[in-house]
Amino acid sequence: MAIQELKINTGRQGLYEITDEISGFITKNKISEGICVVFTPHTTAGITINENADPDVVRDILFGLEKAFPDRKEFIHSEGNSAAHLKASCVGSSVNIIITNGKLMLGTWQGIYFCEFDGPRSRKVTIKVIVDADL
Amino acid sequence: MAIQELKINTGRQGLYEITDEISGFITKNKISEGICVVFTPHTTAGITINENADPDVVRDILFGLEKAFPDRKEFIHSEGNSAAHLKASCVGSSVNIIITNGKLMLGTWQGIYFCEFDGPRSRKVTIKVIVDADL
Amino acid sequence: MAIQELKINTGRQGLYEITDEISGFITKNKISEGICVVFTPHTTAGITINENADPDVVRDILFGLEKAFPDRKEFIHSEGNSAAHLKASCVGSSVNIIITNGKLMLGTWQGIYFCEFDGPRSRKVTIKVIVDADL
Repeated sequence: MAIQELKINTGRQGLYEITDEISGFITKNKISEGICVVFTPHTTAGITINENADPDVVRDILFGLEKAFPDRKEFIHSEGNSAAHLKASCVGSSVNIIITNGKLMLGTWQGIYFCEFDGPRSRKVTIKVIVDADL
Repeated sequence: MAIQELKINTGRQGLYEITDEISGFITKNKISEGICVVFTPHTTAGITINENADPDVVRDILFGLEKAFPDRKEFIHSEGNSAAHLKASCVGSSVNIIITNGKLMLGTWQGIYFCEFDGPRSRKVTIKVIVDADL
Repeated sequence: MAIQELKINTGRQGLYEITDEISGFITKNKISEGICVVFTPHTTAGITINENADPDVVRDILFGLEKAFPDRKEFIHSEGNSAAHLKASCVGSSVNIIITNGKLMLGTWQGIYFCEFDGPRSRKVTIKVIVDADL
């Protein structure tokens, strides 16, 4: 199955919804049953699934991550972005979504987000599907 | 391969072990080798793997998450459950478990848990297996 | 597809890079396209992907996790390692990496790490690949 790469130009910090791009990939490739892996190849960014109805949720998630993983004077990494690396490992580099009947099995309020923790940058996300061979 | 949905009625916050239900799905469907994806379609809940021997571990995990991601007066999401959304993105919406010789490859002390961060609610978990086609 | 198990002898806390071992497994088994799951069967350890260029990043990640999830006097689990269980659920028990053209699709700065939060111990990591059947 083909792999698709998305490109995202980001601001300093932010969550960028990519649900439509991933749904479009499933539809275009006529995938019926399988698993979709959404992966980002960066070390100061992540992928998460969370609410896409009220944008205040995204704002509060970024605020809460900043409080839990603030920049600290004890950090020694010379680029000064250790908090972004920490958020990346907490949120994770990828998510899995189940595909059935040709659609992503997301909940009513779920959206898929690219998480920028150390922008602005030009970023990539890779989408890969493993189709169910046992049907 | 069939998909199975579990239903869980939760309390306010809690970790609910679902290992037996997932093992039962593997056995019932006679799956020998593959990957099992356990996914929850909610944005204030998660799936994690942790110790299932001493219930105090689960209690301490919930306590520690509450300390790291408390409710904050600066949160603006009007439903007032931003801390639960934050915990969901930290813990994650899904886990993967390797299946071999017809069994989940879990460690001795590992159990699979549905994590409720904003109950009580009626919740769902979806189980999907990708069988290994290359055998 | 074969499963491979790695063994790692750890210190008290640390991130141990295992990228070369996983790349070697892909090469040895001549896997061209698929998904690689890297899973650890322990409840006080995790798997993460982060920077492998400057070792100070790893040091800062461990420091930041310790600050976000410290040992707490309110913890009741008698083994006294609840903070390690908490870090395990935050970082996660596994990662997925996409394989294409016979290689792990990792970013320039990404390495795969076993995370020890409660050593020293003798630990295991399991590598499993699902090859793409739809090619």
